[in-house]
Amino acid sequence: MPLFKPISENEATGKVKEVFDEIKKARKISEVPNFWKYIANNPETLERIWSSMQQVMKEGALNSVTKELIYVAVSMTNSCEYCTRSHTVAAKKKGATDEMIKEMIDVVGMANQNNKLVEAYQVEVDDIYK
Amino acid sequence: MPLFKPISENEATGKVKEVFDEIKKARKISEVPNFWKYIANNPETLERIWSSMQQVMKEGALNSVTKELIYVAVSMTNSCEYCTRSHTVAAKKKGATDEMIKEMIDVVGMANQNNKLVEAYQVEVDDIYK
Amino acid sequence: MPLFKPISENEATGKVKEVFDEIKKARKISEVPNFWKYIANNPETLERIWSSMQQVMKEGALNSVTKELIYVAVSMTNSCEYCTRSHTVAAKKKGATDEMIKEMIDVVGMANQNNKLVEAYQVEVDDIYK
Amino acid sequence: MPLFKPISENEATGKVKEVFDEIKKARKISEVPNFWKYIANNPETLERIWSSMQQVMKEGALNSVTKELIYVAVSMTNSCEYCTRSHTVAAKKKGATDEMIKEMIDVVGMANQNNKLVEAYQVEVDDIYK
Amino acid sequence: MPLFKPISENEATGKVKEVFDEIKKARKISEVPNFWKYIANNPETLERIWSSMQQVMKEGALNSVTKELIYVAVSMTNSCEYCTRSHTVAAKKKGATDEMIKEMIDVVGMANQNNKLVEAYQVEVDDIYK
Amino acid sequence: MPLFKPISENEATGKVKEVFDEIKKARKISEVPNFWKYIANNPETLERIWSSMQQVMKEGALNSVTKELIYVAVSMTNSCEYCTRSHTVAAKKKGATDEMIKEMIDVVGMANQNNKLVEAYQVEVDDIYK
Repeated sequence: MPLFKPISENEATGKVKEVFDEIKKARKISEVPNFWKYIANNPETLERIWSSMQQVMKEGALNSVTKELIYVAVSMTNSCEYCTRSHTVAAKKKGATDEMIKEMIDVVGMANQNNKLVEAYQVEVDDIYK
Repeated sequence: MPLFKPISENEATGKVKEVFDEIKKARKISEVPNFWKYIANNPETLERIWSSMQQVMKEGALNSVTKELIYVAVSMTNSCEYCTRSHTVAAKKKGATDEMIKEMIDVVGMANQNNKLVEAYQVEVDDIYK
Repeated sequence: MPLFKPISENEATGKVKEVFDEIKKARKISEVPNFWKYIANNPETLERIWSSMQQVMKEGALNSVTKELIYVAVSMTNSCEYCTRSHTVAAKKKGATDEMIKEMIDVVGMANQNNKLVEAYQVEVDDIYK
Repeated sequence: MPLFKPISENEATGKVKEVFDEIKKARKISEVPNFWKYIANNPETLERIWSSMQQVMKEGALNSVTKELIYVAVSMTNSCEYCTRSHTVAAKKKGATDEMIKEMIDVVGMANQNNKLVEAYQVEVDDIYK
Repeated sequence: MPLFKPISENEATGKVKEVFDEIKKARKISEVPNFWKYIANNPETLERIWSSMQQVMKEGALNSVTKELIYVAVSMTNSCEYCTRSHTVAAKKKGATDEMIKEMIDVVGMANQNNKLVEAYQVEVDDIYK
Repeated sequence: MPLFKPISENEATGKVKEVFDEIKKARKISEVPNFWKYIANNPETLERIWSSMQQVMKEGALNSVTKELIYVAVSMTNSCEYCTRSHTVAAKKKGATDEMIKEMIDVVGMANQNNKLVEAYQVEVDDIYK
């Protein structure tokens, strides 16, 4: 049993229902994913995170596939299974290929290794990077 | 004083000198960055990491700007200052604009927040993501 | 199969039995939680962690609900499911309400986001904080 | 040199100036802290984070001292120096005593230790916590 | 369903089959562990990681039991269940006793606690360590 | 300025002085390292951590060089500069050679990389490891 039960679409009223409807419309999906159902326990949080996500993940200088891949790379680094799975699906929907995902995983692995080699050797920042 | 002193270009001989020369040629830079000078304390490690980095960071299904951005996103998540600074410089050289970097930072922030909301609410994986 | 099997209450003898009895008495519970049963594989560790926990979690300048909430916030940040679940139950027993837990989760999310924004922008410490 | 230069109060115009003024008024401070000056490079981010912080950190079921302490505990766990220093100052302003901060640090240390003991022993979740 | 399906030994051809055969021979095992089957989705990655692992984990100034224990300690710190389980089995095969593993776990716990106490108190580096 | 000032040896009285004297005697050093001076702000914490450290780091099934190396590997993974520097010095004092430290660093790098590859590919635990 999780700390809080997810709010089902049937139970949703008021603001929660509104955000649920927006999510389904914007994402073109027929069922609200669990992430949103859980944080709906706190309707203010649901609204804030949903509106923040729309601002942050929208097409901009970076296209939305790249944004999804960056999101997944962070989630892998933080070992968040749910986030890794759900945003890999999102990345694929937006056009990420299997080859792109495999190459991203290689970068995630290398960066995690080199980040620790830098800390291990206590590498000093070069003047050109300061 | 770091755990080991960096190997200067003057001190470099044999394999270390070879890799140092390759790095400068491949990256079109006149000075070897500190990361490589430190790990050169272990010449096998220098060779392995350099050849791995070339394999992983080369143009492929993902272009090399995107790979650098993913590398930076992981480094920010791991709070590695050296890696963040040096690979942001690399990303810019390869064409990343300030706008792209700022948007990447927003994604890094959101993903880190949502990764923890997922753990906090102990969100169960939806069937469609399994 | 975990690395080590938990020590059941039936198997407990000597120091392990003593600590198990203390835990049940102090916590007013009829069954020793798994955490203690696993670390009982090393009786010295069981004793050390139990006595440390009593010192650290006792009422003081901070009341014990606040201490439990801080413990849970750290556990969420470290993605420790067992710790998150068990100490949320403990927090509730000591008086934490659902509203308090939801607000704590929001703070955990925001802090994790802002921690990374600080690293991403490489924010310099203001003189007043030095 | 950080990735981006902080936006000074003199340079601030439009939305950035508005948020800077709100921050100084709400916090009763005469100088905008560096965190806000750096993220002001992206005015949308500045607005979003500022409004999110006000929603999340306001008095509620948890008082704002407790919220600051939870914020600091997460920042310590993530080794974010800036965040630890600045929110400890904030916690003190709102009434946190040195004794409270020292006790919080003890909890942060214990939780980090026990989180890893749980992972190390691969402790299974007790039925009562499921 | 994971992001990619593991490559079974029956499906393996070319380089993947070669590396799979090497793994079984070098490790004296009759079945390739899942880690290698998953990363075999990217044959270049499989080859690179396998050859890197052989270089890094071979007997040297440190014997291979000690290397496995260090590997497990890092995996516990990163909460990687698969890595913790599989490398604990490897450590045992190479001669690690239960007592050694329990003592290692104690060190992992203490180091994680003290790492955070250091960050919490913002301990300055002593001159003798600089 | 750190959150708390270190307690100098001159200021030390009572329990703090006793522990300071024990540290210098046990470690055969003439000056108490900063870590202990900072946590001495909470004398109970100083005593608890000192006695825990003696229990955990003592010669046992693992010799104390190996324990120091494991401690350092965790500290590198957590990017704790102070802990990495001070325990590397301790490891060297107890007999760790530069070669041993370089090999340990390689293992730390590899483990951090592979930990993330495992999370990225969502590798399922093999039956033999369950």
